[in-house]
Amino acid sequence: MGIRSALLTDLYELTMIQGYFFENMRNRVVFDMFFREQPFDGGFSVFAGLDDVIRELENLSFTGDDIAYLASLQMFRPEFLDFLASFRFHGDLYAMDEGTIVFPNEPLVRIHGDIIEAQLIESMLLNILNFQTLIATKSARVRVATDGRGEVMEFGLRRAQGVDGAMSATRAAYIGGSSSTSNTLGGKLFGIPVSGTMAHSWIMAFKDELTAFSKFAEYYPDHTVLLIDTYDTLDSGIENAIQVGKLLTAQGKKFGVRLDSGDLHYLSVQVRKRLDDAGLTKATIAVSNELNEEIIHELVRDGAPIDYWGVGTHLVTGGNSASLTGVYKLASVETEGGWKPVLKMSNNPAKMTNPGAKQVYRFLNGGGSPIADLLVLESEDPAFLEKPEIVFHHPAIMERGNFVLREWSAAIPLLHKKMENGKRLVTSPALPEIHERAAMQVASLDKTFKRFLNPHIYKVSLSGELKEMKADLIRSYRERYYSDLR
Amino acid sequence: MGIRSALLTDLYELTMIQGYFFENMRNRVVFDMFFREQPFDGGFSVFAGLDDVIRELENLSFTGDDIAYLASLQMFRPEFLDFLASFRFHGDLYAMDEGTIVFPNEPLVRIHGDIIEAQLIESMLLNILNFQTLIATKSARVRVATDGRGEVMEFGLRRAQGVDGAMSATRAAYIGGSSSTSNTLGGKLFGIPVSGTMAHSWIMAFKDELTAFSKFAEYYPDHTVLLIDTYDTLDSGIENAIQVGKLLTAQGKKFGVRLDSGDLHYLSVQVRKRLDDAGLTKATIAVSNELNEEIIHELVRDGAPIDYWGVGTHLVTGGNSASLTGVYKLASVETEGGWKPVLKMSNNPAKMTNPGAKQVYRFLNGGGSPIADLLVLESEDPAFLEKPEIVFHHPAIMERGNFVLREWSAAIPLLHKKMENGKRLVTSPALPEIHERAAMQVASLDKTFKRFLNPHIYKVSLSGELKEMKADLIRSYRERYYSDLR
Repeated sequence: MGIRSALLTDLYELTMIQGYFFENMRNRVVFDMFFREQPFDGGFSVFAGLDDVIRELENLSFTGDDIAYLASLQMFRPEFLDFLASFRFHGDLYAMDEGTIVFPNEPLVRIHGDIIEAQLIESMLLNILNFQTLIATKSARVRVATDGRGEVMEFGLRRAQGVDGAMSATRAAYIGGSSSTSNTLGGKLFGIPVSGTMAHSWIMAFKDELTAFSKFAEYYPDHTVLLIDTYDTLDSGIENAIQVGKLLTAQGKKFGVRLDSGDLHYLSVQVRKRLDDAGLTKATIAVSNELNEEIIHELVRDGAPIDYWGVGTHLVTGGNSASLTGVYKLASVETEGGWKPVLKMSNNPAKMTNPGAKQVYRFLNGGGSPIADLLVLESEDPAFLEKPEIVFHHPAIMERGNFVLREWSAAIPLLHKKMENGKRLVTSPALPEIHERAAMQVASLDKTFKRFLNPHIYKVSLSGELKEMKADLIRSYRERYYSDLR
Repeated sequence: MGIRSALLTDLYELTMIQGYFFENMRNRVVFDMFFREQPFDGGFSVFAGLDDVIRELENLSFTGDDIAYLASLQMFRPEFLDFLASFRFHGDLYAMDEGTIVFPNEPLVRIHGDIIEAQLIESMLLNILNFQTLIATKSARVRVATDGRGEVMEFGLRRAQGVDGAMSATRAAYIGGSSSTSNTLGGKLFGIPVSGTMAHSWIMAFKDELTAFSKFAEYYPDHTVLLIDTYDTLDSGIENAIQVGKLLTAQGKKFGVRLDSGDLHYLSVQVRKRLDDAGLTKATIAVSNELNEEIIHELVRDGAPIDYWGVGTHLVTGGNSASLTGVYKLASVETEGGWKPVLKMSNNPAKMTNPGAKQVYRFLNGGGSPIADLLVLESEDPAFLEKPEIVFHHPAIMERGNFVLREWSAAIPLLHKKMENGKRLVTSPALPEIHERAAMQVASLDKTFKRFLNPHIYKVSLSGELKEMKADLIRSYRERYYSDLR
């Protein structure tokens, strides 16, 4: 689902870069992409979308049509349009691996490039990473909610936000933890297992429910999951399904039913009992109908005998949190006097950005579980890791007491160079590999961070050097811009 | 942003239609697309997305690759795959015009086709219509909130749900009421005016704020809107902006400022005062920062002096309502004995569907304002409109008292035939025309339906004949499927 037009950008990126172009500003800059708050009031997120960003960056260009359109706006001069016509992205990209567990205020992607190319890509990069990270996170939460009971099937195509809203949600949901998708094109393009059962219309298209069930079993003896709520789940659906299920079971075939309405706890218990009483103890129960992680969590905790979870709307849109508020902020600018770190001021300390080109170290305990992340200037000597203790400074509140780490088993740098000079350095891992990485990372995270209500807040701290740089910059901006009379 | 692959469908559509194919079921059916609840707890929605659906239907086909992929799943037989390889949609489509105000439980689209083609298109049709209707509705609400004060600029690209989430949101937001978009590709493809100002990074890229402002004004004397919150809005931003604004004003140019953080009411009042005190009474104030209709409504009601509203995240994702729960339900099936209306039963009366092929009449009062909608069987004699009174029957509660309409000035049929035999019958209206239609329809709607809190519920009722048909069907299903012992 490539974009293949650099015109997928906010107009202001183009007006700004025309300014840089005629000012002969081609100095190199560093931008960070990060988010400020966990979506879903959660305790962790799962990074996704990188591969699509790299593909877009490698192919980013304006068509002749695009240039003609820009000319028609009468805001851009011919020399600049000529420049755009041959524009290619030649920057470097550092990023975390897709499927990595991530936290607020740490750079997930760092772009090094000249100010023009680095600015132009902002909207596209944010569009892709914000959405896929949101959905991978939602999917991981849904999987956490199942507590190992049953597989998650992504059923969101019809409720997704447009075609690519569906396609990239299918990809990201699989990264985060779903096992299959109903989106057949997604199955084809991403190699994700496809799944599905039947709609009510199948049952309504035949003269009666039993005929509809029997016919389905005849065509799909290896994939029969019967939707039993078209007329009445307990008075009609389950009884007809049991008749068909007995025949399939006698043939040595698997068989299941799906509930799509009503009280899923009550109905799944009743249906399980009827199936078991009929000797169909291996028959599975799938459920769907506006599920989300909270509902699944309750059903699992209450012991509802459910084997498959079909999750649509909430999984592919994020439900109540429909966007990740990822941002892309300037961190450093090359000047004649060398690199100059910058930050975005704000009256709200939590909204001030962290200056400079940074690496993120994740500290793990002996069990391989993450303890805390530390933002470190790239220019810092990595020998700091050999000290007996590491001081973690609070990222926003300068006066806040520090946290000292004395025991850890590993400190892993999370940002890796993925593109150099506009070219991909490493081939992207296969999607199942990313899915596996996310699963292992989520499993390694202490369960207190995975609570749905009031999760433990994971520490993302600053090194001493970075904290000093930030404090100095804030002081100098304040001296320069704030009036004494206020 | 065409899909150009019929594989963008849920797997179960394909498994079902293989069944129909080998059962030689090619009988004609009627499906209705409708939604059950207003999004955003609102009182109205704006229908959008139809043109994209028609374009997809006209081009719907499977590629050789698609067929090979389906073969690899080992669920489909060669004869059926051959059929798919030459599949085209040959059905008829009836729909409301894009930009029409719509309400729950009335068909927005009616598909007549053979059961195979009509079933296959479900997921794609719902994906497009659900999302664009959601966003056109959100956009109309945002415009209602402005109460005629200022224009809405759609700024959502970076927070939209994927690329097409952005592109189709840009289109739908414009239909619903925004005046421009920051999405440059959207501007090009849909002919929507583009707008934008500058990012904080522009200001941070220059040695100081005043230089950054002056440079921008130099390049864009006709489009200067200065972002004044990078360092400090009142201590720095507004003062530097006034310096530049005076120069522009002296040249006879327009000029404005943008606020992107802080208390927008307090800041807009202060900034307005400073601008006015400096003689810049014509300077405009634009605001942005996670705006939605409720926030805008409050700001407008409190008299905040704001001229432009930049709305991003909430406008392009729907915010707290991230999906329209539109469904696609079988309404009638052709049998050897003629057309047989069907309905989907449910223990919840509100979830039972309305049977048969239906038309929707909208009754208007003398002022052209909608009073109520009536669902009528297509087979009913339109002469019923000449009676002195029309009885409106409650759609779900069969026992409920009726509403009798004795005075109206017009009754407009809302569903029109847009495709016949798979071909478009009418060229699609230009987007500005749809934008205009929506604006007029929203304006004509009584304001009680446009309240954000507890809006008046618009009546969507059944004709007597339709109500009888529905009651008969429910009775016959009940007799057949419900046990007496329950």
